[in-house]
Amino acid sequence: MSVIAMKFGGTSVGDAEKIRAAARRAVNAHKKGHQVVVVVSAMGKSTDQLVALAEQITPNPPKREMDQLLATGEQVTISLMAMALEEMGVEAISFTAGQIGIVTDDVHTKARIKRIDVRRIRDALENGRVVIAAGFQGVTESGAITTLGRGGSNVTLVALAAALNAEVCENYTDVDGIYTADPRLVPTARKLDRISYDEMLELSSLGASVLHNRAVEFAKKYNVPIHVRSSLNNRKGTMIVAETEDMERIVVSGAALKDRLARITLREVPDRPGVAAKVFHTMATNRIVVDDIIQTTDESGRATVSFTVEPGDLPEARAVVDKLRDDMGCKALYEDHLAKVSVVGVGMRVHTGVAERMFEALAAAGINIENITTSEIKLSCLIDRDQGAKAMQLVHDAFDLGEGGRKTRVPKSAKAGRKKKSSPKAGRAKAAKKSPKRKSKSKKK
Amino acid sequence: MSVIAMKFGGTSVGDAEKIRAAARRAVNAHKKGHQVVVVVSAMGKSTDQLVALAEQITPNPPKREMDQLLATGEQVTISLMAMALEEMGVEAISFTAGQIGIVTDDVHTKARIKRIDVRRIRDALENGRVVIAAGFQGVTESGAITTLGRGGSNVTLVALAAALNAEVCENYTDVDGIYTADPRLVPTARKLDRISYDEMLELSSLGASVLHNRAVEFAKKYNVPIHVRSSLNNRKGTMIVAETEDMERIVVSGAALKDRLARITLREVPDRPGVAAKVFHTMATNRIVVDDIIQTTDESGRATVSFTVEPGDLPEARAVVDKLRDDMGCKALYEDHLAKVSVVGVGMRVHTGVAERMFEALAAAGINIENITTSEIKLSCLIDRDQGAKAMQLVHDAFDLGEGGRKTRVPKSAKAGRKKKSSPKAGRAKAAKKSPKRKSKSKKK
Repeated sequence: MSVIAMKFGGTSVGDAEKIRAAARRAVNAHKKGHQVVVVVSAMGKSTDQLVALAEQITPNPPKREMDQLLATGEQVTISLMAMALEEMGVEAISFTAGQIGIVTDDVHTKARIKRIDVRRIRDALENGRVVIAAGFQGVTESGAITTLGRGGSNVTLVALAAALNAEVCENYTDVDGIYTADPRLVPTARKLDRISYDEMLELSSLGASVLHNRAVEFAKKYNVPIHVRSSLNNRKGTMIVAETEDMERIVVSGAALKDRLARITLREVPDRPGVAAKVFHTMATNRIVVDDIIQTTDESGRATVSFTVEPGDLPEARAVVDKLRDDMGCKALYEDHLAKVSVVGVGMRVHTGVAERMFEALAAAGINIENITTSEIKLSCLIDRDQGAKAMQLVHDAFDLGEGGRKTRVPKSAKAGRKKKSSPKAGRAKAAKKSPKRKSKSKKK
Repeated sequence: MSVIAMKFGGTSVGDAEKIRAAARRAVNAHKKGHQVVVVVSAMGKSTDQLVALAEQITPNPPKREMDQLLATGEQVTISLMAMALEEMGVEAISFTAGQIGIVTDDVHTKARIKRIDVRRIRDALENGRVVIAAGFQGVTESGAITTLGRGGSNVTLVALAAALNAEVCENYTDVDGIYTADPRLVPTARKLDRISYDEMLELSSLGASVLHNRAVEFAKKYNVPIHVRSSLNNRKGTMIVAETEDMERIVVSGAALKDRLARITLREVPDRPGVAAKVFHTMATNRIVVDDIIQTTDESGRATVSFTVEPGDLPEARAVVDKLRDDMGCKALYEDHLAKVSVVGVGMRVHTGVAERMFEALAAAGINIENITTSEIKLSCLIDRDQGAKAMQLVHDAFDLGEGGRKTRVPKSAKAGRKKKSSPKAGRAKAAKKSPKRKSKSKKK
């Protein structure tokens, strides 16, 4: 019998009515003859409320106790969800992470799963029960409760789906799927039918917040396809899947904006081995997260090292860098009014012309590019923060990503250029139907 | 090193400030060199809120899931309490019942403790940590969470104190201790310095709600003295202890009122073996809790069986009894406007005159006694409900229980009569000081 794993995020279990709605999905899958495992997050804002409680006690709660506290959020939801299923006449049983043995390391607040003993889940499923599992939490070898960090419930979903060899792994959330861009920024953004793990990883780290990277990494590692979809309707969402050759026909799948970045530039740095290492070692020991790094060397043999940080970290980073600057006898420059616009697509691996088109689009609008960074499937431009939203729309249009348009496609054989989909009209109608929230008013093509 | 076990009820951990106040008590005991175990209940009304959540899902939640849900209440408190201690610079560690292995049977919502494995607690204590344990909950052999029913946190306290051979077992609550009567009913009620387990058991079942019977039974079984005291001040409360010969000098320790009772009387019942059994078997199978039972037989060989129930159960009991009446060909009488006033004291075992004094006091005020029931250390009178409060005050006065007075005492050798305490004035002053909430205005003597 096939196993279906489904997960409902906090907003999808925010009150009794939503819990019942989620339970109905599980009941339907159960009645179709599937073995059903449901992973749930804490209800709505309840995790925030628990954090606020802890903050009333101490600004620095011990992490072990924070995990002990936060894990109650999911425990409340699993029991209520099991009750809802029983009320609908379907036998259900809830399990905390400790009860099913989701064993993690002991790095509290961001533990990693070491193994899952699925015997108890299997037994319950074999007995015809729907299993409700607490997301986000784990248990150490010695029985302490851990939590898996941001996006942890999705990690639980993917880990359970992998361990149970689930046929489908459904991630019910409050959005319809993964979009070509954040629809709040780009009204013409279009929901993607599918996206590769790597593209999703790049989009997540660029600011798309639907799925946290750790869950996607886990899914990629165990090749678990994730269906990201809305808990409010029955439409198909976005499948996050292993890359296929076919995907390379799409040059750019999506665009993302990190709208608040600060940049630190060290000039006239002695170009000796170990200097860059010293800079970033110092950042790491001061727990300052560094985003992109660029290093160039001029003719005199002195280097320019430039990197971006969160604006909130800038004052602390500045203190550290000022000292480095004095030690090394170089110059330092600080800017805190930047943003980063990026495009992502596995097609970049085989297609040229992406950078050119992006730069042209920005230049035509008079947007200055401060820095350029790339990966195999990503191209990012650092720009002025005030121009972030405009740049997103321009790039989105330039790559024809929007609703009414489609992703930039090329014939399978070609290495560059574009080709319209065979039936653009049908494609358009389908896309519009799938995203009823936004009206297809601005067909900019 | 001596172990101190202390427990804080829901109102004593109702918010962050109260949690800090409770933590300070633990810190103080720790700094005095004790090994400290703190048992906590769920914060304030949080259990009620969880029950309300469940009720939004279903009117009949599965008990296993209800326990899974309710146990989160104590889990929140233990983690916050541990945080508060750490914030005060004392190492602490919180444990759920599952984490310390408070193993119970699998009777969900009213499980009984089978054993406690104190190794983990001992280890933490030996390492200088204060241990914070979740009250009210347990875990079955197979890892399901159970709860211990009403008063369950006190059961946890006593069980841990017994298992750890604790020197002191302190029950911090929102009252100053055990009183000679409910101070809301009897303004002159006085806090007792000590009371025997058996007296406490009688008082609890008669309506005094400070400590649930199961905790007292447990304490009696393992001879754990419980100190019931206020979390709002540092005054001594009431010690609940094993009976000593000395206690028998006090004839009456306290009085209690059950202010709402209904009575069912079956008359002309055939006095055959098994008839009473049939009546109460029928009550039990219909889950109607029966209070006191009286049976008398008249000269014709027919019996009168009379028993009391909660007024809320009367309609259901009536339906059952009507059928019994028809089956047995007897008469049935229903009354729902009764109350029961009782006095309790281990001294009754050896002293006479208690009944006489109680009946005189009630008769002098024109209060009719409908029924009398007794145990070795208790005397109860069923009266009209409207006269309940008045009767309490009369009986309280008759046995000189009040503030400004003292418990009725007799010389150790005498079997009846009274003798004033050697220093009534000092006693009075002390009693008044201990109960600052109530003004010693009505010294009725």
